[in-house]
Amino acid sequence: MRQALHRQTIATNGQGLVAITEPVCRWVAAQPIVTGLLTIWCRHSSASLLVQENAAPDARADLEAFFRRLVPEGAPYRHQDEGPDDMPAHIKAALTQTQLSIPVDSGRPVLGTWQGIYLFEHRTAPHRRELVLHLIGD
Amino acid sequence: MRQALHRQTIATNGQGLVAITEPVCRWVAAQPIVTGLLTIWCRHSSASLLVQENAAPDARADLEAFFRRLVPEGAPYRHQDEGPDDMPAHIKAALTQTQLSIPVDSGRPVLGTWQGIYLFEHRTAPHRRELVLHLIGD
Amino acid sequence: MRQALHRQTIATNGQGLVAITEPVCRWVAAQPIVTGLLTIWCRHSSASLLVQENAAPDARADLEAFFRRLVPEGAPYRHQDEGPDDMPAHIKAALTQTQLSIPVDSGRPVLGTWQGIYLFEHRTAPHRRELVLHLIGD
Repeated sequence: MRQALHRQTIATNGQGLVAITEPVCRWVAAQPIVTGLLTIWCRHSSASLLVQENAAPDARADLEAFFRRLVPEGAPYRHQDEGPDDMPAHIKAALTQTQLSIPVDSGRPVLGTWQGIYLFEHRTAPHRRELVLHLIGD
Repeated sequence: MRQALHRQTIATNGQGLVAITEPVCRWVAAQPIVTGLLTIWCRHSSASLLVQENAAPDARADLEAFFRRLVPEGAPYRHQDEGPDDMPAHIKAALTQTQLSIPVDSGRPVLGTWQGIYLFEHRTAPHRRELVLHLIGD
Repeated sequence: MRQALHRQTIATNGQGLVAITEPVCRWVAAQPIVTGLLTIWCRHSSASLLVQENAAPDARADLEAFFRRLVPEGAPYRHQDEGPDDMPAHIKAALTQTQLSIPVDSGRPVLGTWQGIYLFEHRTAPHRRELVLHLIGD
């Protein structure tokens, strides 16, 4: 049994979903571990992780629109210091995932055919986001 | 330290919660690992996982009704190709879990007395859903 | 490779977020494992886990207020036996996390600068909540 740890920076372009399946799977494939458990940790409270439909861009647009309606920027939040998009960002992060753990088989995370892994940027401005990848197995 | 990997198919009857505590615990009990970490991965983006109250059926009906109100089928989604229940299914999956990892002690996941594990089917039609179970430990 | 398992009781004061970063990190630091994966499991379906902004108390108040608005106590739930706060508690738990797994590096969970780990109590009355911590690594 062995493990590997990796820090991966992802550049975002403001609010929306950024596909990270490819860099994540590439890192896993480069490790000597072929069976095990991959964990992805997002080190932020205004960006998060999501597993979603990887084929239809419209599905991702609908998903982003749903979260904008559910957590509007105009609501009377007390926490306003960092701009109107900051508190909705924290709430959207709370409603999605900060972490995903995916079993790995034959050197690949066992994603379904239609599953993609996404970093969900909740702030309006572009950011550099840091993920920590951890892999344990044989 | 050792690990085990298993694919489990669950038949669903259309929208709603399907209890999976028993088949999951049965597989764990059959493994030679008694202390460790169990991970359940749902290989779909229109079904998800949930830990809920395992006693009151009314609580599950209320939970299903809440998600139907929060993510109505009639909303003007762009992604309509796969029917009116498809986009709400993706959103409900995003709001719940694709993965659960549960510590295992004495050969059993450490669920609380009132906790059950559920597969949450979000599509109207019955489906066969595939879960991947991964167990690592001693 | 080794592992450790620990049960931690957290007292809550009724609805709201209770910071648990410190007791969790203290337990991890006391283990002989310096690189690995920490899992926190909440053994309840009316309390949950959350990663949030650890600096601004206003952000936590806004977050609690958002969930109270999204899942109001007055809605016509069928499951009323345990009081008007019980069904909203189950729904809020479903919308947040029952489990978190965090990579550990140099004896510390790899939390970002602004990330804190919280137990989210959803019931009105104070409770004693049980968490299970599991650590695997070297």
